[in-house]
Amino acid sequence: MDVRGSLRDGAFGSATGLVCRECGATRELGPHYACHDCFGPLEVAYDFGTVTREQIEAGPRNIWRYKALLPVPEDIESSPNTEPGFTRLLEARNLADELGIARLWVKDDSTNPTNSFKDRVVACALSAATELGAKVFACPSTGNLANAVAAAGARAGIRTVVFIPSNLETPKQVNSAVFTDNLVAVEGNYDDVNKLASEIAGEEDGWAFVNVNVRPFYAEGSKTLGYEIAEQLGWRLPDQIVIPVASGSQLTKVHKAFQELITLGLVEDKPYKVFGAQAEGCNPVATAFAEGHDAIRPVKPDTIAKSLAIGNPADGIYVLDVTRSTGGAVEQVSDDEIREAIVLLARTEGIFTETAGGTTLATLKKLVATGALDPDLETVFINTGHGLKTLDAVSGSVGPAATIAPTYDAFVASGLA
Amino acid sequence: MDVRGSLRDGAFGSATGLVCRECGATRELGPHYACHDCFGPLEVAYDFGTVTREQIEAGPRNIWRYKALLPVPEDIESSPNTEPGFTRLLEARNLADELGIARLWVKDDSTNPTNSFKDRVVACALSAATELGAKVFACPSTGNLANAVAAAGARAGIRTVVFIPSNLETPKQVNSAVFTDNLVAVEGNYDDVNKLASEIAGEEDGWAFVNVNVRPFYAEGSKTLGYEIAEQLGWRLPDQIVIPVASGSQLTKVHKAFQELITLGLVEDKPYKVFGAQAEGCNPVATAFAEGHDAIRPVKPDTIAKSLAIGNPADGIYVLDVTRSTGGAVEQVSDDEIREAIVLLARTEGIFTETAGGTTLATLKKLVATGALDPDLETVFINTGHGLKTLDAVSGSVGPAATIAPTYDAFVASGLA
Ligand SMILES: Cc1ncc(COP(=O)(O)O)c(C=O)c1O
Ligand SMILES: Cc1ncc(COP(=O)(O)O)c(C=O)c1O
Ligand SMILES: [Zn+2]
Ligand SMILES: [Zn+2]
Repeated sequence: MDVRGSLRDGAFGSATGLVCRECGATRELGPHYACHDCFGPLEVAYDFGTVTREQIEAGPRNIWRYKALLPVPEDIESSPNTEPGFTRLLEARNLADELGIARLWVKDDSTNPTNSFKDRVVACALSAATELGAKVFACPSTGNLANAVAAAGARAGIRTVVFIPSNLETPKQVNSAVFTDNLVAVEGNYDDVNKLASEIAGEEDGWAFVNVNVRPFYAEGSKTLGYEIAEQLGWRLPDQIVIPVASGSQLTKVHKAFQELITLGLVEDKPYKVFGAQAEGCNPVATAFAEGHDAIRPVKPDTIAKSLAIGNPADGIYVLDVTRSTGGAVEQVSDDEIREAIVLLARTEGIFTETAGGTTLATLKKLVATGALDPDLETVFINTGHGLKTLDAVSGSVGPAATIAPTYDAFVASGLA
Repeated sequence: MDVRGSLRDGAFGSATGLVCRECGATRELGPHYACHDCFGPLEVAYDFGTVTREQIEAGPRNIWRYKALLPVPEDIESSPNTEPGFTRLLEARNLADELGIARLWVKDDSTNPTNSFKDRVVACALSAATELGAKVFACPSTGNLANAVAAAGARAGIRTVVFIPSNLETPKQVNSAVFTDNLVAVEGNYDDVNKLASEIAGEEDGWAFVNVNVRPFYAEGSKTLGYEIAEQLGWRLPDQIVIPVASGSQLTKVHKAFQELITLGLVEDKPYKVFGAQAEGCNPVATAFAEGHDAIRPVKPDTIAKSLAIGNPADGIYVLDVTRSTGGAVEQVSDDEIREAIVLLARTEGIFTETAGGTTLATLKKLVATGALDPDLETVFINTGHGLKTLDAVSGSVGPAATIAPTYDAFVASGLA
């Protein structure tokens, strides 16, 4: 992607540059994602200055309340965007009882504009794409990201092109196609789609692929999950948090957010454990964790948790770092456990999650069973998506208890009175 | 339904009684919905005292910030509930340009906990059911209400039984069945299901049917849409508002909310016009409006807008009152116009609405065309539900632009570069 001649002042807020996560080399802010020296992934670096709770609390009821901590301009609210974030943090008492946990919260991102946490990262990517003068807003996606990119692009009035595996669930396909003329189904799995996107990003001028060439900006959006959880708990950190892992970006960014809040003095410093959740059918990070490896061996995904089906996760090694260094773990669960967990969350807390959330809750349950997670400590898990997008996962196991004629007698005969 | 021996103090906040909308007779607060004297519908009456903007703004980011204006106890936030409301009010500039309107906002209730405005009314009904000591939380529903009742009941830990027409869209069925063991499919249309519910409510003790025997409390929940729109506009009223009409309750309650805000001095008094939206396939109120009648002649619904398919609307005559007295109108649109409007909203603003929202937007478009709505005045329309629940409405008209092999050459050949 070609950068526009010059960036306007403050285009990336208090971000100062891009820094290599491997060798620490720095690059100027721009559509770069790999280190010049070692090809390591780049991350946004900042010079925050002072940020206060009051300043944040006076902001809008969406992720832009944290704009001082994101690579976005001061006037970000005035560009049309989907205004994601500040979703519910619900205390889950019924579920806690069911699992034998003392205090449990669910951060519910299924109520975001396109019903997944992806609206957060896409909003940050859109800002970067706009500031860099991109002409096309694009992504490879396991589904949720396509929904978010297509919707945000429509509202912003920028051309979108989104690439998905051709075997994706119909709801996720329609949920993108409704927003864009340019939904491209690719014969292959997500890793194939992702490779194609990198190729196109290299060949075409002015294409911003949210999770490829503007990935450093995109990824920062997940920090807002961490900020919100802390603010909604009354400006404090939980003891334990369970997060799903596909590329692994979200998990590392929630940790980064907690660290920033501590450094800025916005929350008290305290230890917390970060846990990662994967499906058995796509478990490269869980396997590396269990086997004590530092490298990730890619897998070919085969699971109902399609939104987590990234066989070659870009941030997998950093997930290992964060979970190991905080005393957490990465665990894996079966498709049947995922299905059961979806129904469990619905029946106990009235939240309908997709397979990714099922994976996260099933993992939480397993972590309690194995003793890796302490049931006496305060725990948060993140529900990152919506069950209406993966109906097939449960449509075989739930349904009407009875079909009756419209009469009181028929009702009584049904035995439900 | 039998009331529990005695109500606790403040069980219904500052509500003072139930008053008949027809003859003005009053009844004590309880599970009553019809007037002793004339069988007219009952409505909650209040003695508000002073309510300030500051008091509201200091409240939680959900409908309970308006608890002083609702028939709920002071400690409502401490009972487990889905915490609905305070959804996005988005300025819709692209859509406004498309329609030739100067200033347009969409109030987006598709991001509520179960993705429709019904979470608001159900939260109020749940409070009443709990205070009255109900053992079962139930409803007849065109789909969205069933989702909301089943979810709210699960979280509150009360038994739920929900009744739906057996021909309902699968997503709406699964989206209820996932929350409750007691989804009952009834062979008939909504009006049949509703009649059955009234019968059961009369026969069974301890059953709170949200929209039957606790309907006066339930209906008040829709007022929060009006409060939020006013607060989010900076404590002022719009000039025109377009609202979908099924039973007609929501439309009348948004008007009631605006009137209360004026009376309490929370917004400046000013004229505003209220418009109602119906589908041609279920148009009893639009027909009465067009023909200048005061009574509603029931119809047999036949439209893709199933959530609006109430052929015999309980509040239809009050919708006529409100739209006529404010200078608004009730208009009707075809199923094709509804489908087109769903895609229009998605393409312009990145919001995926269901057929009810398609009906509302198509009506807005028609009202501009007929001149009934002034394009130079500030207008709000309410998106009450989510497109993922009525996928079939658009799955035939949108889809992938191309299916390609995972290679750059295949991409170039697709013509999308
Ligand atoms: C619903 C959902 N949850 C979680 C994830 C994981 O995100 P990450 O790639 O940041 O690990 C994804 C990624 O697509 C997702 O769609
Ligand atoms: C999505 C949606 N919008 C609007 C309505 C209309 O509500 P009312 O019955 O209050 O007119 C309904 C009612 O079921 C609905 O489900
Ligand atoms: Zn490097
Ligand atoms: Zn009366």
